Amino acid sequence: MEIDKRSGCPINLSLEVLGDKWSLIVIRDMMFGNRRHFRDLLTHSEERIASNILAARLKHLLSIGLITKRDDPSHSQKAIYSLTEPSIQLLPILAMIGGWGRKHLPVTPELSIRAELLEDGGPIMWEEFMNELREIHITNPIGGTNGQVASSVLARLTAAYIQTCERMEES
Amino acid sequence: MEIDKRSGCPINLSLEVLGDKWSLIVIRDMMFGNRRHFRDLLTHSEERIASNILAARLKHLLSIGLITKRDDPSHSQKAIYSLTEPSIQLLPILAMIGGWGRKHLPVTPELSIRAELLEDGGPIMWEEFMNELREIHITNPIGGTNGQVASSVLARLTAAYIQTCERMEES
Repeated sequence: MEIDKRSGCPINLSLEVLGDKWSLIVIRDMMFGNRRHFRDLLTHSEERIASNILAARLKHLLSIGLITKRDDPSHSQKAIYSLTEPSIQLLPILAMIGGWGRKHLPVTPELSIRAELLEDGGPIMWEEFMNELREIHITNPIGGTNGQVASSVLARLTAAYIQTCERMEES
Repeated sequence: MEIDKRSGCPINLSLEVLGDKWSLIVIRDMMFGNRRHFRDLLTHSEERIASNILAARLKHLLSIGLITKRDDPSHSQKAIYSLTEPSIQLLPILAMIGGWGRKHLPVTPELSIRAELLEDGGPIMWEEFMNELREIHITNPIGGTNGQVASSVLARLTAAYIQTCERMEES
């Protein structure tokens, strides 16, 4: 692992690995948006990540074992990225960061509905979602990328997100 | 609040506010080390934060309301920094980040004993510690800086840390 090791404190080491403004955003998009190809991560990015930053962050996450990369047989010339057990275990932290943001920062409704559902669902929902992520990213990393994801939590979060987007457009 | 607002997603906004390599380190040192003066934060830093970075991070945290600054009557020419309700509510996130780091990264024993105790203590200990932090940083922000902190969780964490440091030196 490429770590500077400013110190061996677990909070410090975690921040050395994750504490830039983009790494957790990429993991968030793979986790909640099921974006697994470079182009999806780039073009659907709400924060308009630049392609050189995305490439650098993917390389960094690969180097520290938080994602894996393999050929996607269903897309010639395309690589598919998957989460690993350590990055899947970031879900409760992302859920809590989302909950903190909802409480203290000027969030927008359509982008906070999933954080709200995750917060309400609590640790039981997080466990369920982590099991689904293991299925999608580790057990069957090639199969689950066409929107036909056998995930009830991800499906619920996505449905709530789309519904809120539509409501915002109507109003 | 000074936020770029790449997007209104709660995870993104939280990372815009906290997602540099130093802001959460400064909050960690105020929270777990009860370091409240510039010099303490600078000279006791395990990660050897540079004084210009520390000054910039304190200014940033002040600007977004995560810390406050006031004169400390017991130290002429010294300002005392305190956590606020939003930053105190980061404790569960820091505890979980520490737990994740302990599990997946090459931590050192003396700097991970507090993360271990916090993880074992779980949400009940976190609530207790947050109440103590409210007492130290909000109710009585001037009084609690001389090591005579009326905090049982902080005292326990500090004692375990010192004991582990001594054990490491002996071995």
